[in-house]
Amino acid sequence: MKDLFADRMSKIPRSFVREILKVTDDPDIISFAGGLPNPDSFPQKEIAESSSYVIKNSGAEALQYSTTEGYKPLRKVIAERYAADGLKVDVDNILITNGSQQGLDLVGKVFLNFEDTIMVEEPTYLAAIQSFGLYEPKFMSVPLLNDGVDMDMFQTMIENSKPKLFYSIPNFQNPTGISYSLKKRKLIGSILNKNDTVLVEDNPYGEIRFLGEKLPTINSFTENSILLGSFSKIVSPGIRLGWIVANDETMHHLVTAKQASDLHSNFFSQMIVHRYLTGYNVEEHLKKIQNMYKNQRDCMIQMIKRYFPEDVTYTEPEGGMFLWVTLPEGKSSMELFEKAIEDNVAFVPGEAFYLDNSQPNTLRLNFSNSNNAKIEEGIKRLGNAIKNL
Amino acid sequence: MKDLFADRMSKIPRSFVREILKVTDDPDIISFAGGLPNPDSFPQKEIAESSSYVIKNSGAEALQYSTTEGYKPLRKVIAERYAADGLKVDVDNILITNGSQQGLDLVGKVFLNFEDTIMVEEPTYLAAIQSFGLYEPKFMSVPLLNDGVDMDMFQTMIENSKPKLFYSIPNFQNPTGISYSLKKRKLIGSILNKNDTVLVEDNPYGEIRFLGEKLPTINSFTENSILLGSFSKIVSPGIRLGWIVANDETMHHLVTAKQASDLHSNFFSQMIVHRYLTGYNVEEHLKKIQNMYKNQRDCMIQMIKRYFPEDVTYTEPEGGMFLWVTLPEGKSSMELFEKAIEDNVAFVPGEAFYLDNSQPNTLRLNFSNSNNAKIEEGIKRLGNAIKNL
Repeated sequence: MKDLFADRMSKIPRSFVREILKVTDDPDIISFAGGLPNPDSFPQKEIAESSSYVIKNSGAEALQYSTTEGYKPLRKVIAERYAADGLKVDVDNILITNGSQQGLDLVGKVFLNFEDTIMVEEPTYLAAIQSFGLYEPKFMSVPLLNDGVDMDMFQTMIENSKPKLFYSIPNFQNPTGISYSLKKRKLIGSILNKNDTVLVEDNPYGEIRFLGEKLPTINSFTENSILLGSFSKIVSPGIRLGWIVANDETMHHLVTAKQASDLHSNFFSQMIVHRYLTGYNVEEHLKKIQNMYKNQRDCMIQMIKRYFPEDVTYTEPEGGMFLWVTLPEGKSSMELFEKAIEDNVAFVPGEAFYLDNSQPNTLRLNFSNSNNAKIEEGIKRLGNAIKNL
Repeated sequence: MKDLFADRMSKIPRSFVREILKVTDDPDIISFAGGLPNPDSFPQKEIAESSSYVIKNSGAEALQYSTTEGYKPLRKVIAERYAADGLKVDVDNILITNGSQQGLDLVGKVFLNFEDTIMVEEPTYLAAIQSFGLYEPKFMSVPLLNDGVDMDMFQTMIENSKPKLFYSIPNFQNPTGISYSLKKRKLIGSILNKNDTVLVEDNPYGEIRFLGEKLPTINSFTENSILLGSFSKIVSPGIRLGWIVANDETMHHLVTAKQASDLHSNFFSQMIVHRYLTGYNVEEHLKKIQNMYKNQRDCMIQMIKRYFPEDVTYTEPEGGMFLWVTLPEGKSSMELFEKAIEDNVAFVPGEAFYLDNSQPNTLRLNFSNSNNAKIEEGIKRLGNAIKNL
């Protein structure tokens, strides 16, 4: 059957992160490799109550086929939450997806012809490369600085290469943890307004801000945009629910693509999440997650200061789940990985997040799915491994 | 933004069925147009109990990210159910999807290059055309007779056109309700074994057989195959869970495609369905659905005999949810649809299910999502509309 497979399948990188996660399944290993929320943050009791409520009050509706667009009251709650942040979004411009990962697939389906150009951040979220990659585009990448992409390069690349899409994670980016400054958000919006590139703004971590001031989405500064959201980090990733915000014309195509892809998203879960969001104090729940992650992030930074050599640098994220470490020039994080695994501690080597201009001395550390005891011990071991490099 | 959309989007037919469903939303209309299971068949109480059980016993696991392949114990139950039917399937050759509709999308992703040929039945399931259509193949169709495809044409088309895939619904086909004879199943298997065409066997209705003897899947007669299954008709469609059975090599690619498409299927729901299947008497539940649908199908046939002119013919399905009506040559079911809607009764005109060789005198009637009183009144009205044509 080998010759029968589509060409696109040979172009998809295997997920290195996924391969690493297999290695780190061992419970003796302290892993900062994954990208998982802390299960202590899941509102288990509330989801159980919401499930019972939904079946009891709307069982036949919850278990039946439904509309491709998604459960309208849930879309209304999403619109209201945006409104509270000053972003005007109509219910009809929201489509419920199977996590924001499906949003990427649908955007690829709707926009990408063979060898169209798509611009991504450098480094970027590997699963986005996999998702867009199935539509066989050409990728180009623009370097990330501490406050967003390099603006000179961004403008030159947009004007010269005219990419069809620009994929960005402006809040607590995966893998670096950095956030775009307000100035860069505005500037990107104004550059996109003068060009035909469509912004694909992925914001799965936006509500997990534990420091600094909430900043407007880039999409609020440009018409040329698609915004992706997710319940994975604020309610539960296992229920696979996210959403896409897009204008009418794009939405028309996204709905067709979603219908062809899987008819609609899990309706029972949509109703459960709606019940949870409207029946409980979600702001308090968010506060709990933010405090938990801030505490773990603070602990990780403190331990890095204590145990890492002074010439190692790192980002200090104001939210999200990751921080990004840069070893001195010439050091290899792949080599470090091998040493670290011997000491039962794991992370993701940075090269997994680059298209080509790989920085072999970088690595990603996850602080969300951990606790302070593990962080203390794990960072201590990692510091030793760095010193022995 | 118009020029920015991918070419593939202009090639997808809007779902005519979907458009009709909008018209038939009116509660005064008796609709045989949809393709919905009867909500009275949903095991609401058992799903509620299973939901509570899962959260109570495995809440953190159910709400966390999980493996792309799906919940292993659920895949094991699927394998055991196949084994009971004499089909040997390894757990590792099963991938959980968002309904079998996502199975179609993943098969398209993994197999179809631009302008590859895919053979479908004539008539066929429209949403499959939409799903495969996004990968821009060439379609060809082979006519369906009362016991499966026309075998002479099938063999000639396979040998001459060498399609990459053959998409078939051998049990209680949508839209016609017909089933393939054992002889044709074996013959198709042996023809495929001598050629490179891969069978995509879609079997969403297989367990809703209420008459006749259960027949083996076509895939049991050929190595060259993919088998799609679904919980939509036997548990609930709202939870969007189906599966794909494929050999190791194909599975490797399907998992990569699934990972890029949405990481994994709703894990909470997978655990709920697993609990339901292992904690309750599912065979009894299936019996209940089969009896309900047989009763409604019998009523519909009886009313057709009573109210339709004698020169109207129809299929007499042994399972599933649809039957297929053929008006006398020269009559138009689109014209009938307009008359019928005036009388508050709806169905799907047959032309929605054809690629090109449309039979304008055909129509699909759904009997599952109804009751005998509605069927009596609706078929009576439809009979009058046919007489007035």
